[in-house]
Amino acid sequence: MLQSKLFAKTKKSLAKSFETESFKLLYKGDFIDQLASGIFSLLPLGLRVHRKIENIIREELQKIGAQEVYLPALQPKSIWEASNRWKTMDPPLFKLKDRHQKEFTIAPTHEEVITKLVQERVSSYKDLPIALFQIQVKFRNELRFFGGLLRAREFIMKDLYSFHTDQEDFRKYYQKVIKAYFRIFKRCKLKSVLTEASGAGFTNEITHEFQVLIPAGQDWVFYCPHCEFAQNREISKLKAGDKCPKCKKGKIELQRGIEIANIFPLGDKYSKAFNLKFKDKDGKDKYVIMGCYGIGVGRLMATIVEVWHDENGIIWPEEIAPYFVHLVPLEFNVSKVKQVSLKLYQDLQKLGIEVLCDDRKDKSPGEKLKDADLIGIPWRVVISKKTIKSGKIEIKKRCAKSSKLVTPKEFLNLLRR
Amino acid sequence: MLQSKLFAKTKKSLAKSFETESFKLLYKGDFIDQLASGIFSLLPLGLRVHRKIENIIREELQKIGAQEVYLPALQPKSIWEASNRWKTMDPPLFKLKDRHQKEFTIAPTHEEVITKLVQERVSSYKDLPIALFQIQVKFRNELRFFGGLLRAREFIMKDLYSFHTDQEDFRKYYQKVIKAYFRIFKRCKLKSVLTEASGAGFTNEITHEFQVLIPAGQDWVFYCPHCEFAQNREISKLKAGDKCPKCKKGKIELQRGIEIANIFPLGDKYSKAFNLKFKDKDGKDKYVIMGCYGIGVGRLMATIVEVWHDENGIIWPEEIAPYFVHLVPLEFNVSKVKQVSLKLYQDLQKLGIEVLCDDRKDKSPGEKLKDADLIGIPWRVVISKKTIKSGKIEIKKRCAKSSKLVTPKEFLNLLRR
Repeated sequence: MLQSKLFAKTKKSLAKSFETESFKLLYKGDFIDQLASGIFSLLPLGLRVHRKIENIIREELQKIGAQEVYLPALQPKSIWEASNRWKTMDPPLFKLKDRHQKEFTIAPTHEEVITKLVQERVSSYKDLPIALFQIQVKFRNELRFFGGLLRAREFIMKDLYSFHTDQEDFRKYYQKVIKAYFRIFKRCKLKSVLTEASGAGFTNEITHEFQVLIPAGQDWVFYCPHCEFAQNREISKLKAGDKCPKCKKGKIELQRGIEIANIFPLGDKYSKAFNLKFKDKDGKDKYVIMGCYGIGVGRLMATIVEVWHDENGIIWPEEIAPYFVHLVPLEFNVSKVKQVSLKLYQDLQKLGIEVLCDDRKDKSPGEKLKDADLIGIPWRVVISKKTIKSGKIEIKKRCAKSSKLVTPKEFLNLLRR
Repeated sequence: MLQSKLFAKTKKSLAKSFETESFKLLYKGDFIDQLASGIFSLLPLGLRVHRKIENIIREELQKIGAQEVYLPALQPKSIWEASNRWKTMDPPLFKLKDRHQKEFTIAPTHEEVITKLVQERVSSYKDLPIALFQIQVKFRNELRFFGGLLRAREFIMKDLYSFHTDQEDFRKYYQKVIKAYFRIFKRCKLKSVLTEASGAGFTNEITHEFQVLIPAGQDWVFYCPHCEFAQNREISKLKAGDKCPKCKKGKIELQRGIEIANIFPLGDKYSKAFNLKFKDKDGKDKYVIMGCYGIGVGRLMATIVEVWHDENGIIWPEEIAPYFVHLVPLEFNVSKVKQVSLKLYQDLQKLGIEVLCDDRKDKSPGEKLKDADLIGIPWRVVISKKTIKSGKIEIKKRCAKSSKLVTPKEFLNLLRR
């Protein structure tokens, strides 16, 4: 992509203040735009990152046998009454009427729809287990919104639902999802901690959250650095300094965390509400045991920025960066600089490498370098009239301090490995 | 994919009647599910087709320099008042309030949001042209819904918006989009006709629709079979039998059509509403000239089924089929049949071919063949104990009448070409 054509205008100064670094940097780098409080557009750079995260999630869930569907957002009141959540959801549902005065919601979660869908297709134990997921828009009627993509009113979520003959089969799958989630977050370069938490209206059982422990988080987590046992403060009876109740060795710390995912045992709550039964091997009708598992994709993206940034901008992990290489010709109007840049641009594309080339002529070298740091593409390649005389370009990893002079060929060989 | 695991239950008998063949077949084949009137879920088979169509659209739009974004559905009243459409949209907007009693809509189209977005980023003629598209959910508060995915209340649409310094530049891009659309529909194996139509509240100018002329369509189109001139009856002064006003040779026919896309010159309507100006070369402030271009992805999918089916089921065009090869072992519990099937299943996957293998043991050969015809995968491969004795499998194209006995190796070589 040629940067002169890219729909992105980085901001030099900010007219307002931001509660979080991720909001500030994603806004400043023009990855996102805010239409209203808690409602965002993803611009080309932001959407590229978002899609890469989506694809990581998709790949890892397909590995554990989950199939992708796409469920509607607009949902009739009747199914929310069936689950007794029309009036009790917290935050309360967005509610609206159609032209026939029928009531609908735009859904914050999809237990109702998916249980109904599965109920119409399952009759025997042979039909189970089933795991279905979607990556789709959600609406939450929050009272307050926080930190840009960290807590939005409209956001894209991956929600996975699983259906089982019994608790044992459910528990096995629950563990598989935990492993898949750790793989997802690892690929996103996030260290997350499995944290015991409350059911949040989905269940009365203990559930699990994946928390990224950083000061920018809004949650409080009791955490054992020795065995990684963790409990959300909301359900914990621990206090800082306590001996870890699990390993009996570590000392409990109270830390801030961002919840990037949650997983819930749903038991037969929704199966009962939607009469989701199956005939077991013994010929008896039984309720299906369910689980649900969510990842907020936008929040995950923001959390990555919270962890991976410095004072100059974002440091995208390689697998989710909007581009892999950023060519920065300091003087694009100098013909030799332009020529070397465009040749390298083509050569990189031939290798299948995603590359952004800053061909803007109305920006100073200083502005270009500042933008490159802000946008945070893993490899920065500076092409300048100074070094190009000796046939060299300056390569630098965004996460590294030092740069290196190499020939374009050496750089290509480095990436080819 | 092993069919025993696939989340899809084809229906043998139908409890209700369907207005269109596409609705019936997509429902019967379990590509889609209906949650409420005009509101659908895409199940795994349906989502696979939908995504392939999305990707064709994406590829062809990127070829004409359009960049992808993702805009929110939830939109504040203020921007719809700015464009004077809060009260005048037809069908009327879905309206709702948040917890602060602020009014919102869930949007049927995105002119307001995108114009505002571009206004904040464009100041000079150097910033233009710009072309932005998204593939995103839309909500339309229709009084009546028709034919399943043909006219839904919630649906996924590709909407493209372009921004230009003047009419001439706009007209050039408009022609590029027309060509891109024809390429998209050709890849979907649809013959479409560029049809003059009304502005539908977007503009007072003549606009263009892409109509697929088939009896199942709900629109009426005057059409010249000689030069392909076409006019929507809503704006036409022609009558059947007239001499074509364009080529003066053909005789005008009145035909039924499905509108699969539309393109609108928007002029400066939204630029004026959102003060979207730029400084031209002569230093003067001018309004940006806009165009918008839509394709309903679900409707396109349904139209393909309207055109490509027979009495037994769907006949998916190769590029958008949910899978490319359907292996149908008639007796999966016969070990030789199972062995040959699974070997072929693996060999096909190694070639990167998407394959569905009907490993279901509780289905009769008749049921399996019926399902294969219904689902409509381009290649059907029957593996049976009868033919496997002589080392042969029966291959048949879904669109062809006759089948052929070949060895698995011959089949693999055929696909390898």
